[in-house]
Amino acid sequence: MKPQTLKLLGTAALASLALALPAFGQDAEPVVEATEEVVATPEWALIFNTLLFLIGGFLVMWMAAGFAMLEAGLVRTKNVSMQCLKNIALYSVAGIMFWFTGYSLMYSGVDGGFIGSFGPYNFPAPGADTGEAGYSVASDWFFQMVFCATTASIVSGTLAERIKFWPFLAFTVILTGFIYPIAGSWQWGGGWLAEMGFSDFAGSTLVHSVGGWAALAGALILGARHGKYGADGTVMAMPGSSIPLATLGMFILWLGWFGFNGASQLAMGTIADAGDVSRIFANTNMAAAAGAVVAVIATQLIYKKIDVTMVINGALAGLVSITAEPLAPSMPIALLVGGIGGLIVVFTVPLLDRFKIDDVVGAIPVHLVCGIWGTLIVPLSNSGTNYVTQFIGVISYGIFTLVVSAIVWFIIKVTIGMRVSEEEEALGLDRSEVGVEAYPEFN
Amino acid sequence: MKPQTLKLLGTAALASLALALPAFGQDAEPVVEATEEVVATPEWALIFNTLLFLIGGFLVMWMAAGFAMLEAGLVRTKNVSMQCLKNIALYSVAGIMFWFTGYSLMYSGVDGGFIGSFGPYNFPAPGADTGEAGYSVASDWFFQMVFCATTASIVSGTLAERIKFWPFLAFTVILTGFIYPIAGSWQWGGGWLAEMGFSDFAGSTLVHSVGGWAALAGALILGARHGKYGADGTVMAMPGSSIPLATLGMFILWLGWFGFNGASQLAMGTIADAGDVSRIFANTNMAAAAGAVVAVIATQLIYKKIDVTMVINGALAGLVSITAEPLAPSMPIALLVGGIGGLIVVFTVPLLDRFKIDDVVGAIPVHLVCGIWGTLIVPLSNSGTNYVTQFIGVISYGIFTLVVSAIVWFIIKVTIGMRVSEEEEALGLDRSEVGVEAYPEFN
Amino acid sequence: MKPQTLKLLGTAALASLALALPAFGQDAEPVVEATEEVVATPEWALIFNTLLFLIGGFLVMWMAAGFAMLEAGLVRTKNVSMQCLKNIALYSVAGIMFWFTGYSLMYSGVDGGFIGSFGPYNFPAPGADTGEAGYSVASDWFFQMVFCATTASIVSGTLAERIKFWPFLAFTVILTGFIYPIAGSWQWGGGWLAEMGFSDFAGSTLVHSVGGWAALAGALILGARHGKYGADGTVMAMPGSSIPLATLGMFILWLGWFGFNGASQLAMGTIADAGDVSRIFANTNMAAAAGAVVAVIATQLIYKKIDVTMVINGALAGLVSITAEPLAPSMPIALLVGGIGGLIVVFTVPLLDRFKIDDVVGAIPVHLVCGIWGTLIVPLSNSGTNYVTQFIGVISYGIFTLVVSAIVWFIIKVTIGMRVSEEEEALGLDRSEVGVEAYPEFN
Repeated sequence: MKPQTLKLLGTAALASLALALPAFGQDAEPVVEATEEVVATPEWALIFNTLLFLIGGFLVMWMAAGFAMLEAGLVRTKNVSMQCLKNIALYSVAGIMFWFTGYSLMYSGVDGGFIGSFGPYNFPAPGADTGEAGYSVASDWFFQMVFCATTASIVSGTLAERIKFWPFLAFTVILTGFIYPIAGSWQWGGGWLAEMGFSDFAGSTLVHSVGGWAALAGALILGARHGKYGADGTVMAMPGSSIPLATLGMFILWLGWFGFNGASQLAMGTIADAGDVSRIFANTNMAAAAGAVVAVIATQLIYKKIDVTMVINGALAGLVSITAEPLAPSMPIALLVGGIGGLIVVFTVPLLDRFKIDDVVGAIPVHLVCGIWGTLIVPLSNSGTNYVTQFIGVISYGIFTLVVSAIVWFIIKVTIGMRVSEEEEALGLDRSEVGVEAYPEFN
Repeated sequence: MKPQTLKLLGTAALASLALALPAFGQDAEPVVEATEEVVATPEWALIFNTLLFLIGGFLVMWMAAGFAMLEAGLVRTKNVSMQCLKNIALYSVAGIMFWFTGYSLMYSGVDGGFIGSFGPYNFPAPGADTGEAGYSVASDWFFQMVFCATTASIVSGTLAERIKFWPFLAFTVILTGFIYPIAGSWQWGGGWLAEMGFSDFAGSTLVHSVGGWAALAGALILGARHGKYGADGTVMAMPGSSIPLATLGMFILWLGWFGFNGASQLAMGTIADAGDVSRIFANTNMAAAAGAVVAVIATQLIYKKIDVTMVINGALAGLVSITAEPLAPSMPIALLVGGIGGLIVVFTVPLLDRFKIDDVVGAIPVHLVCGIWGTLIVPLSNSGTNYVTQFIGVISYGIFTLVVSAIVWFIIKVTIGMRVSEEEEALGLDRSEVGVEAYPEFN
Repeated sequence: MKPQTLKLLGTAALASLALALPAFGQDAEPVVEATEEVVATPEWALIFNTLLFLIGGFLVMWMAAGFAMLEAGLVRTKNVSMQCLKNIALYSVAGIMFWFTGYSLMYSGVDGGFIGSFGPYNFPAPGADTGEAGYSVASDWFFQMVFCATTASIVSGTLAERIKFWPFLAFTVILTGFIYPIAGSWQWGGGWLAEMGFSDFAGSTLVHSVGGWAALAGALILGARHGKYGADGTVMAMPGSSIPLATLGMFILWLGWFGFNGASQLAMGTIADAGDVSRIFANTNMAAAAGAVVAVIATQLIYKKIDVTMVINGALAGLVSITAEPLAPSMPIALLVGGIGGLIVVFTVPLLDRFKIDDVVGAIPVHLVCGIWGTLIVPLSNSGTNYVTQFIGVISYGIFTLVVSAIVWFIIKVTIGMRVSEEEEALGLDRSEVGVEAYPEFN
C-alpha cells in the first residue's frame, strides 16, 4: 500500500482505522473501536477502489507488451526474437517473484524501516475479502505486481543485443524479488523515506529510476556492443528493425500510463478522488504530448530532420517526468515538466554515447534521467514537499540500486557469465540462443 | 458537454439544475434553489459518470495507435516512419491545442450561437471537484480531447506519402485548436444546430465528416502522388507495406469505438443509462460486423477476390455509419446501417480514383461519405429527428469545414509550402524528412 | 446466463427471484411478490455488474486482434493477408450469428436440457432496461458474444495456409450459430451438465476445447500442408513470418484473458464479488506466468535453445488451463495448473506432428489439450466438484463437437470443397484468394 492510501482514511470515515493498516501476514486487531459517530465506508466505494486497481492493473500489465514492441522495434532484426522472449520471461518472472517474496518485503511490517518481512503472499479465500483495507487486497497485489514488472522491463532494453538470456533472467529474479521490493518499502511500504516526507506519487524514482539504475549498472559491467564505438570516438549507428513496432510500443505505454499514474491515486470511492484521477489522466497526457512536441522541435533544429525514435522517447520521457507528481501540477506546469523531459532525452542520448555507455533503446535517458528530473521538480507544484528531501530520496535510491545491482551483475558475470561470444553477437541472439528467427523469410 | 448530457438532468434529480450547466470560466450561481423535494444525485452516480468518461477516454486515446498502425500498414515502406511520426505529433498537438483554445471555443458560452469563448481550460484544484456538473469536469475534458485528436487522425492518412511534415502539423494546429472546436460548438456545445434539433450522437458528422472534409480539401489542393494517375486514366496501384499492421490498426479502432460511441451516452449513473451504454456496444459491434461482411461479399462478387483492405475499411465504414445514432437502432437496423456503409466504401474508393482524388488510406470514403450516410439515416431509428434538419447539419458542416480548411491549406501552400519535391517523394519521406527508415534492414 | 450468475441471487437479496430468470422472448411475470423483507439490489450493484460485462467484453473482443496477430505471425508471409482476413471475417460473422440464433439456442429455455430455443435476440428498448436480471441484458449479450467469437478464432489458426476462405467461413457460421451455442447450453445455459454438477468457470472446455475439437476435426479432414510431412516421417519446419507479431498476439490474449476469466465471475456488485474478480486476475496471471516459465525451462533442457514460439504457446497454455477454475486455486495451485499446461504444450506439439496432424499455430495443444487438463483438474481446488463429472463433461463435449464438426466439414468438403489447389497453396493464399500481399515490397 502506497502512503497515499492513507488518504483513504480522510476521504471517508472508515469503520475502523486500524483495519486500514497493512494487515498482511499478521492478525489485524482494531486498535480503535468503532463508535456510533464513525460512518462505515459504503460498499460501493470499496468496489470503486478495487475497480480502479483492476483497470489500472490491466493497463499497466499491457505496458509489458509496450516494452516488448518498443524493444523489438529498436533492436536489429537478428535480435528481435530474443527481445520478445526476454519480455515475456521477465513479465512472468516478475509476477512469480513478487508473489514469492516481493510483496511482503515491500509492504509487510516495514514500519518506518528499510525492509519488510519474508514470505509469499496469501490472498483471502474466495468470497472472504470484506474490503477492510478499503479495497480488495488481491486487486492491490495485482496492481503492485505490474509495477514491479515495469521496473524489470526497463532493464531489458538497455542491455539488448549482447546479454545472454539466463544471466538476464537471473538478474530479473533478484531485481523483482528483492531489489525493487526492498527499495519500494522505503517509500510506498511506509519506510524511512516516507517518514522523512519524500514524495513519489507513481514512481518516477521508485519504478523508473530504479529500473534505470539497474540498467546502468548492467550496461557498465556488460560493455558496449562490438563495433558500436570506434577507437577514434566514432559512434556507429545501429538503427532499429521496425519503427512501426516501436511506435506501437510507445502508444501502448502511453495508454498504460493512464493506469500507472491514474490508479496510483489508489482510490476512486469519492467524487473528489475520481476527479483527481481524471486530473491525473489529463496531466499525464499533457506531459507526454509536450515531451513529444519538444523532441520534434529539438531534433528539427539540431539535426535538420525529425528523428522519430527521439520523438518516441520524448513522449516516454514526458510520461516518466510527470510520474512523480501527476496530480498537483496545473496544465502549464505539466507541459513544462514533460517538455523538459523531452529535451533531456534529446541531449542525454548522445551524451551516453560520449561516455560509451551503450543503451540500445535509450532507456537510461528516458527512465533514469527523466525519473530523477521528475522527482526533483515535485516541489514546484506540490507544496507539501521540499527539494532537499526529494534530493535525498533520489540519491538514496541511486546509491542503493546502483551498488546492489552492480554487485549482482558482477556475481553473475564471474559465475555463469553475462555476455554472448563475439561470434554469437555478430550472428545475432535469435540464432545463437533462441533458435527462432524473427523474420525468417526476410533474410 | 454534449447536449445528451442534459439527460442527466432527467435521470436523477439534481440538487441544483443550474450547477449542471456549463460553468466553465465563469462563476456558476445556482438559479434554482435546492428544495426539500430535490433529491441529490448520489455520489456513486457521479463516479460512474466520471468512470465512463475515463474508460471511454482511454479507449478513444488508443484509437490514435489504431490510426498510426492502419496508416503505417497502408503506406509504402519508404513513408512508414513519417506516418508514425505524424500520428504521434498530431495526437500530441491535439491535446495541447484542445487545452489551449479548443475546449473553451467548443463548450464555453456558446448559447445557441456559432462559437464559444477564447482561452485555455482550467481544471478544479486537486480534491476540489464536487461533481456539480454530474461528473468530474477533467474526465469530460479528457474524453472530448481524444475526440478532437481523432478528427486530426483522419486527415493524416489521406494526405500521406507526399505532404511535408511541418505544413501538416501547422494545419493540425488550426484544425484541433479552431476548426473542429468551432464546428463542434454548433452541436455539442449547444449552438445553433443543437437548438434546431440536429442529432449526431457520437460524431459521424462532427468528428468523422469534419475530418473527412478537411482531408478532402487538403487532397484537392495537395494533388495526387506522382505516378498515381496516368494521363490515359489508368490508376496505378500502390499497395500498402503491411496488411497485418493495417489489420491491427482496424482492430484497435474497433475496440476504441466502444469508448467512442459507448461513452458518448455521457452517463452511466443509472441502470437505464448503463443499459443504454450496453446497447450501444452491441449495435456498434453489429454495424462494424455488417460493414466487414458486406465488403467481403461485394469484393468477391466484383473482383473475384476478397480485398482485405476493403474489408478493413468496410468494418471502419460500419463503425462510422452507426456513430451518428448507435443507441436507437434495433439490431437489424444496425446491421443495415453498417452494411450499407461497407457497400459505400467498396464503391466510393474507385470513384475517388476516377476523379483523381488521391486518398492513400481510403479515409474520405470511410469517414466523410459514411459519416454523411450515418447522419442522414438517423431519423430511420430515432423518431425525435427529421431528415431535413439532418441534411441541413450535414451541409452546414460540409461547407464550413471544406471552405475554411481550403483557405488554411491554401495559405499554408503559398507560404511555407505543402509538398515535398518530386525527388523527395520518389525517395520517400522517411529519408527526406525523418532521417530514419522504417525497416532499415529490408531494403 | 452462466450458472454462476445464480450466485447473484445469493450475494444480494433481489426484489424478485423470478425476474432474474432468463426472460428472453417471453413476458416475464414475477412469480414471487416482493415483500417487505426483501431488500432490493441497489442500483449501483446493477451498474457494477453491467460494467463488469462491458469491460470484460471489450477485453475479450480485443482477443480477436490477439488471435489475428498471433496467427499472422505464425503463418508464412504468403498467407498473412488471408489470416488477417479470416480473423476479421470470423469475428464479424460470430457477432451476427450469435445474435441471429446463438444466444437463444444457448440461454433461452434450456431448462436442464440439451438445447435452447430458436430465434434472434432482442434487446430492451433504449432506457428500458430496469436491471431486473441483475445487470443490463445487452451487456450480458455482448460478453457472451465475444466468447462465441473466441471459439471460432481457435479454429482459424490450425487450418491456416491451405483452407479456402469460403469453406472456412461457412463452418464459422455453423460453429458460431449452432455448435458452440448448443454445446454451451448444456452448461452455461443451465442444461443437463449444469444440473449434473459439471463445472467450467470461464470455458476451458466450453470455449477452448470446443474450438479445439472443431479445429481437430477440420485438420483431420483437410489434411496437412503439402511438404509438411515427408514419406519417411520427417517433419518440415515451416517457421512463422513474424515473431514480434506473434508475441504481440500473445500479450493481447493475456490482457484479454483478465476479461475472459475475471468477468466470468458475472458480478461485481458486492465487495466479495469484486474481491473474487481480483483473485481471478491474480490467479490468471500466475498460471500464464508459470506456463511461460515452464516452457522456457523445458525447451532449454530439451532443445538446448529456448523456443520462443513454445514460450508464447506456453503462456497461452497456462491461461487455458486455469480458465476452468480461476477463482478457487491458491497461488501455488494456480502456478501448478498453469505450469503443467506449459509442459503439455511442449510435449504435445511434436506429438501431433508424429500423427501428421498439421496444426499451423499449435492451437490444438493449447486450446484442446490444455482445455481438457484444466477442466479435469478443477476438483483439486474446488471441493464442490468431482473428477467423474468433470470427465463426463469433457467426454461429452468432445464427442459432440468432434462428431458434429466432422459432419459439417465433410459436407463442406464434398459440396463446395475445402482446400485450395496444390499450386495455389504453393503460391500462397494471399495471391490466390485475397489478391493483396501482406508485405508486397519484401518479396
